[in-house]
Amino acid sequence: MPHIALPEGLPGISAGFAFRPETAKPMRELAHVLLHEPNSLTPGERELIATYVSSRNDCYFCQSSHGAAAACHLGDGDLVKKVTADFQSAPVTPKLKALLAIAGKVQQDGKRVLAEDVAAARAQGATDVEIHDTVLIAAAFCMYNRYVDGLGTWQPHDESMYAEMGRHLAEHGYEKPSR
Amino acid sequence: MPHIALPEGLPGISAGFAFRPETAKPMRELAHVLLHEPNSLTPGERELIATYVSSRNDCYFCQSSHGAAAACHLGDGDLVKKVTADFQSAPVTPKLKALLAIAGKVQQDGKRVLAEDVAAARAQGATDVEIHDTVLIAAAFCMYNRYVDGLGTWQPHDESMYAEMGRHLAEHGYEKPSR
Repeated sequence: MPHIALPEGLPGISAGFAFRPETAKPMRELAHVLLHEPNSLTPGERELIATYVSSRNDCYFCQSSHGAAAACHLGDGDLVKKVTADFQSAPVTPKLKALLAIAGKVQQDGKRVLAEDVAAARAQGATDVEIHDTVLIAAAFCMYNRYVDGLGTWQPHDESMYAEMGRHLAEHGYEKPSR
Repeated sequence: MPHIALPEGLPGISAGFAFRPETAKPMRELAHVLLHEPNSLTPGERELIATYVSSRNDCYFCQSSHGAAAACHLGDGDLVKKVTADFQSAPVTPKLKALLAIAGKVQQDGKRVLAEDVAAARAQGATDVEIHDTVLIAAAFCMYNRYVDGLGTWQPHDESMYAEMGRHLAEHGYEKPSR
């Protein structure tokens, strides 16, 4: 039961977006730039970072929808589960592992990111923009996750709904409502 | 020493904004809508919520700059210190105390917000939009704080600089760079 009178029938963040279009616009735009626009990190890698942070924040809606978007981009749902369970042992690149380690620290507190964490990512070929975007994806999902949970949004447990949502996000990105 | 090659001489979030204008635009716009545009919560009240959350996240730059903006709006720097030290005993309205309690829970985890917290705010006259915006200000500062700290930005300890920044933000808002 949502804490405020959100529009009915819209899951998760869509309800908050419909309730307050003025804040939805920049929130959608930020997600679109971070996750969907051209970048030297693939959309699948960026969605994995978003999913990992949402999983650490225990946000069901965000980890399910972005996990589905990641699975769609990567063509591999099992990989998403492996990354959220234990990314160090998952079959992803050493660069992505170093970036996920930074994201995990940002999820707790930005001050936990140390020069050596950044040096480790750089040693695996990460650029400054990739490090910047990893920090900001992690920080931004600390916002989206808290927004979705703090409003008490409706978060149905329906795998096929998230799979469809993930396909839509992977294809069209975040600027427009999916329904 | 910043973790990546941020432009020199720009404090805190300004350096991240200058480094990546594509993400700066929606981040500025979101702050502008939440903190500066017309709202039934005064700009001073909204800056107090932002300052309180930034203080709980121990982000020096954000609590100093938004604390200065709050002090400028309210004409009372002592009140800002009282709110961050112990808002329950600070001379603010019962409605703002109930909203700060919600913000403090969102800062930890959105799922901590309970129906009774929202009922308490509503009993003091808070509207649904005010509750929504409180949740989102708190969530958004969990992003801004992590972004500022996670990049290792330069955060000078210079009270007069923050006072000037606070005056500029209170007057002009967040859409354009202050320098």
